[in-house]
Amino acid sequence: MEFTVGQIAEVLHGEVEGDASQRIDRLAKIEEAQAGALSFLANAKYEPHLYTTGASAVIVSRTQVLHKPVTAALIRVDDPYTSFSALLEFYQQATRTGRRGVEEPAFMGAGSEIGDNHYRGAFSYIGENCRIGRDVVIFPQAYIGDRCVIGDGTIIYAGAKIYAETVIGARCTIHSGVIIGADGFGFAPQPDGSYRTIPQIGNVVLEDNVSVGANATIDCATLGSTLIREGAKIDNLVQIAHNVEIGRHTVVAAQTGISGSTKIGDFCVLAGQTGIAGHISLANRTTVTAQSGVGKSTKTEGILLQGSPAFNLRDSLRANAIFRHLPEIERRLSDLENTKQTPEKS
Amino acid sequence: MEFTVGQIAEVLHGEVEGDASQRIDRLAKIEEAQAGALSFLANAKYEPHLYTTGASAVIVSRTQVLHKPVTAALIRVDDPYTSFSALLEFYQQATRTGRRGVEEPAFMGAGSEIGDNHYRGAFSYIGENCRIGRDVVIFPQAYIGDRCVIGDGTIIYAGAKIYAETVIGARCTIHSGVIIGADGFGFAPQPDGSYRTIPQIGNVVLEDNVSVGANATIDCATLGSTLIREGAKIDNLVQIAHNVEIGRHTVVAAQTGISGSTKIGDFCVLAGQTGIAGHISLANRTTVTAQSGVGKSTKTEGILLQGSPAFNLRDSLRANAIFRHLPEIERRLSDLENTKQTPEKS
Amino acid sequence: MEFTVGQIAEVLHGEVEGDASQRIDRLAKIEEAQAGALSFLANAKYEPHLYTTGASAVIVSRTQVLHKPVTAALIRVDDPYTSFSALLEFYQQATRTGRRGVEEPAFMGAGSEIGDNHYRGAFSYIGENCRIGRDVVIFPQAYIGDRCVIGDGTIIYAGAKIYAETVIGARCTIHSGVIIGADGFGFAPQPDGSYRTIPQIGNVVLEDNVSVGANATIDCATLGSTLIREGAKIDNLVQIAHNVEIGRHTVVAAQTGISGSTKIGDFCVLAGQTGIAGHISLANRTTVTAQSGVGKSTKTEGILLQGSPAFNLRDSLRANAIFRHLPEIERRLSDLENTKQTPEKS
Repeated sequence: MEFTVGQIAEVLHGEVEGDASQRIDRLAKIEEAQAGALSFLANAKYEPHLYTTGASAVIVSRTQVLHKPVTAALIRVDDPYTSFSALLEFYQQATRTGRRGVEEPAFMGAGSEIGDNHYRGAFSYIGENCRIGRDVVIFPQAYIGDRCVIGDGTIIYAGAKIYAETVIGARCTIHSGVIIGADGFGFAPQPDGSYRTIPQIGNVVLEDNVSVGANATIDCATLGSTLIREGAKIDNLVQIAHNVEIGRHTVVAAQTGISGSTKIGDFCVLAGQTGIAGHISLANRTTVTAQSGVGKSTKTEGILLQGSPAFNLRDSLRANAIFRHLPEIERRLSDLENTKQTPEKS
Repeated sequence: MEFTVGQIAEVLHGEVEGDASQRIDRLAKIEEAQAGALSFLANAKYEPHLYTTGASAVIVSRTQVLHKPVTAALIRVDDPYTSFSALLEFYQQATRTGRRGVEEPAFMGAGSEIGDNHYRGAFSYIGENCRIGRDVVIFPQAYIGDRCVIGDGTIIYAGAKIYAETVIGARCTIHSGVIIGADGFGFAPQPDGSYRTIPQIGNVVLEDNVSVGANATIDCATLGSTLIREGAKIDNLVQIAHNVEIGRHTVVAAQTGISGSTKIGDFCVLAGQTGIAGHISLANRTTVTAQSGVGKSTKTEGILLQGSPAFNLRDSLRANAIFRHLPEIERRLSDLENTKQTPEKS
Repeated sequence: MEFTVGQIAEVLHGEVEGDASQRIDRLAKIEEAQAGALSFLANAKYEPHLYTTGASAVIVSRTQVLHKPVTAALIRVDDPYTSFSALLEFYQQATRTGRRGVEEPAFMGAGSEIGDNHYRGAFSYIGENCRIGRDVVIFPQAYIGDRCVIGDGTIIYAGAKIYAETVIGARCTIHSGVIIGADGFGFAPQPDGSYRTIPQIGNVVLEDNVSVGANATIDCATLGSTLIREGAKIDNLVQIAHNVEIGRHTVVAAQTGISGSTKIGDFCVLAGQTGIAGHISLANRTTVTAQSGVGKSTKTEGILLQGSPAFNLRDSLRANAIFRHLPEIERRLSDLENTKQTPEKS
């Protein structure tokens, strides 16, 4: 893909200063950009790079004052960051998610329907009686089991596996290696110490605008649904167990695990590698710091939790600050004990 | 799938009270059930829901006394929980694992054999010289390398990857994204600080009735076998390194990692996100709590371990209880030191 | 595969003592070997096994003195360990990675090229305009997106997924379930608490001799490249976020997570289940122990870190040693407080 500076300025309703015929074939940060790259300046802190950048062109504000000579062509717009973001989105669609049509061989079972303007990659599999919306992009080797429902504009990357009866909303992004709807981990102990498998016949429901990162796993409910609410963002390698509910616009960072039947509120942030116990609930706007383990429900909104087991962040930071000096604490204690004893001896 | 209340009662050898012609199309919890659903009452605690449930029918004990009017039809049986479990198992098989035959294109290499009554989904791959039993279900896009052996009734979900020479017993369940038999992490440091790869030519052996959760990884042995014994249950995203042995009926919860050459006893429970060091062994019936890290072998059966590094649960709970109050401990210590000094000054 | 002891000795330039016509069909440890197996003795500690082993043949040093009768045939060589390693490598190639040619159906998009002596397994997918070297092995169901570049001799196991524009060096090993190039976890918070997705249009670059374990995930950069330098070894289920850089010959053990824009130096060792915060850098030759969490940059080379939050290993071990005895510390403190009060009362 290659455009001239002039063509890009036209799309952005911008004004060119410099050589509008230069060719642009990629986007880059202003401090790393080289010939052929288009960059942007949105933060005054980065202005010095404007005079040294190797970029062929830079998007700047209409009001940007130049304090030194600039070699790059400039595209002047109202809001450089928004313009650059629009280009990023255009670029991503053009290069990655814009493919349409069916690559053979692709499998679609009896009774399944898919809307207009879709892509079904080679070796992708759609089971029976699925209802799939329009503008849906299904990459190669993805699997969608029987009776699934998928909303408009959702993207399913290569090799994601979606078990039967899963419901996915509109404009969701499901990355490669995601497994949605595998059996919840439910086993009934038997008198001889072995386990009988408890059948898991529920499903998983993702509402609209949910994003699920590579190799994350979301188990189906035992009965009913595991539920990921609107706008939630799930990172790579996250584990979400059976019958969990994740609230609206909650963010779950990589390698976090949430145990069965737990309910996470809206607008929460769970940092990386945290663990949340089963059968509890976290209030809205709860933040849990990295590697923490939460074992109890919370009711107050907006609290910050840290540690394993976790308690409130401020107390946790204080306790950790002293933890490092435990050897010193022990020495001070010994000194006191010795002082006390010395007089007794005397 | 739709049945009448009368048909279900007949299968369960139960007696109907109420309208036996009502149609049932799903199973649900008594407190969530709506019209069309069949539920059950096994625990007296839930009895109040019997009088308010929206279910079309409820399975109850033959001896259940009614204290209020009930609108749902009742199916009276000897043991409601067992009857309901049987229905769950029937439902799961009917909707998910009951498919049979071969969907083309599917690949099977020279010299491989598979028993009767199997399913091989589209884009599934079986290498050369495999011996696969009867009633085996291989979902689309699953991969089975050369010279694998798989027992009767085992289910391999979509996209699971099984490297060459793996041996899997009967009635095992391998979920999507599971990787069995990838190289153990073995690298020999060289004088220049780089690493030479140590070839891993062993395999993985799963005995009967083993379950492996989505995206779990079980590495092959360097030489010999990584061994998962009968009835062990492995949850999602678990890592089992080369030459590990997991004992009979041991349960390993999500995101736990077990390092190379370690041996976990029978009937153990490793909770979520635990880590077990390499080259150690844990005695039978050991329990490790969530996020703990075990660095040393144990010999006594039945102990509970907590913490990172882990020690016995009771002591760990006590130490954690005081950890939170370290700032206060430090203050008390300072007070004593000050008190001691004050007299000296006087 | 089956060879005679004599054939193997010839390849190793070794001398046979005993029956050179015996047939060998596998390699095994000397203490576990049975008839048909070839083993080796490199460490004097294992010499007693030489007189009891069930192996059909054992590779020993030319200078090995026998203190008892031996039933196995001996193959005498200069360096038994090196000879045995060479056999392991030969065996692995013969049994696992030696396949060549194309199994149909396999997909390769317009404009893509692949060098001589390659394997493309059934249901593997190569996008458009890829440049792939010679001796490359692509197992079934692997996915390679558009415009990828892959060096000579690289092995991509079944079902690995490589997003568009990834660059992979020569002699890399990518295990099953690995996801390279999925979107970095970047979301801009909006005034209403929801998140707007920040397009991730960078890529991932792996230099030569990199190994990536099963189900590991390496996200693409927002702009620019996520970079894994020469010889780095990444274990199973590791998470590497957008714009991270991993240094040369650095080892990252299983289930470790590295947050966005962090730079890990050369020759580092990150043990299992560690977490590294975003936007920091670790100096060369840093070691982080298992389950630790590093939140700050380090500048000194060669240090050892432990704990969550991590500090230097020696202090961490001391603090942990006292942590266990916190209940005792508290008791000693109470005793002192009581002693102090007692005199006051008297």
